[in-house]
Amino acid sequence: MKNVFSYTPIGHLRTPYTTAESIPKAMGKPPVAEGVIELDPAYEKGLLDIEGFSHLLVIVAFHLSIDKPLRVMPPGQSRERGVFATRSPHRPNALGILTVELLSRSGTNLNIRGVDVVDGTPVLDIKPYLRHFDCRPESGTGWIGEQ
Amino acid sequence: MKNVFSYTPIGHLRTPYTTAESIPKAMGKPPVAEGVIELDPAYEKGLLDIEGFSHLLVIVAFHLSIDKPLRVMPPGQSRERGVFATRSPHRPNALGILTVELLSRSGTNLNIRGVDVVDGTPVLDIKPYLRHFDCRPESGTGWIGEQ
Repeated sequence: MKNVFSYTPIGHLRTPYTTAESIPKAMGKPPVAEGVIELDPAYEKGLLDIEGFSHLLVIVAFHLSIDKPLRVMPPGQSRERGVFATRSPHRPNALGILTVELLSRSGTNLNIRGVDVVDGTPVLDIKPYLRHFDCRPESGTGWIGEQ
Repeated sequence: MKNVFSYTPIGHLRTPYTTAESIPKAMGKPPVAEGVIELDPAYEKGLLDIEGFSHLLVIVAFHLSIDKPLRVMPPGQSRERGVFATRSPHRPNALGILTVELLSRSGTNLNIRGVDVVDGTPVLDIKPYLRHFDCRPESGTGWIGEQ
């Protein structure tokens, strides 16, 4: 069984946030800041037909994450939670999933809404958001709903 | 800028599918097969509070993927699409996102519904599904809706 999987970024995210501290911690609603996925031009052929989708899933590398705690204290919380019950960027494999709105495409730049990561974050993958797979309106809110 | 990001699996998925060919290609509805996330016991502390969530996002490594095409022919389609406009496992960075229902937890095993990957697929990350971030009922269906 292979023990390590390695990935090369396909592009980077341009966002309004130069530091992690400047990112609004908006629990309870989706981020609204606009940003740009700057895809490496080598991957341009892979964007065919992407304009048809209104939303995308973007897998990013939380490249500034240095520790890998199993328990984290979410913002505004009074006790630690298991890291897999949070969206903290500090986690054993520092990967993030952003659900974003695709506003427009300009060549290999995708203009999007809904970024809450620092400027320069490496992008590992872009996928179409498929409502019948990815939208679960019946889902609960876990400890976040207990507040 | 770092050029390669490496991740060690935190566990593996048990599913009913021993080959990629045996996985139902159900366009238009979520997969219903049940499976198990077998987390490496070293990460058990990270599961605290996960039982409170009804749904999870699971990032997997498509470990059987060998090529990295930029255009792919989706099942039942008559023309190729850009790979970033598909959920094909064959992509530049062979990462997958599964949205699954958490049925129950037994120690470091998470019993889930909604698996459409082969048995033994490496798990890289587990996150709570957060409706206000991840559920976009207003989303379109792109080329999939044109059929």
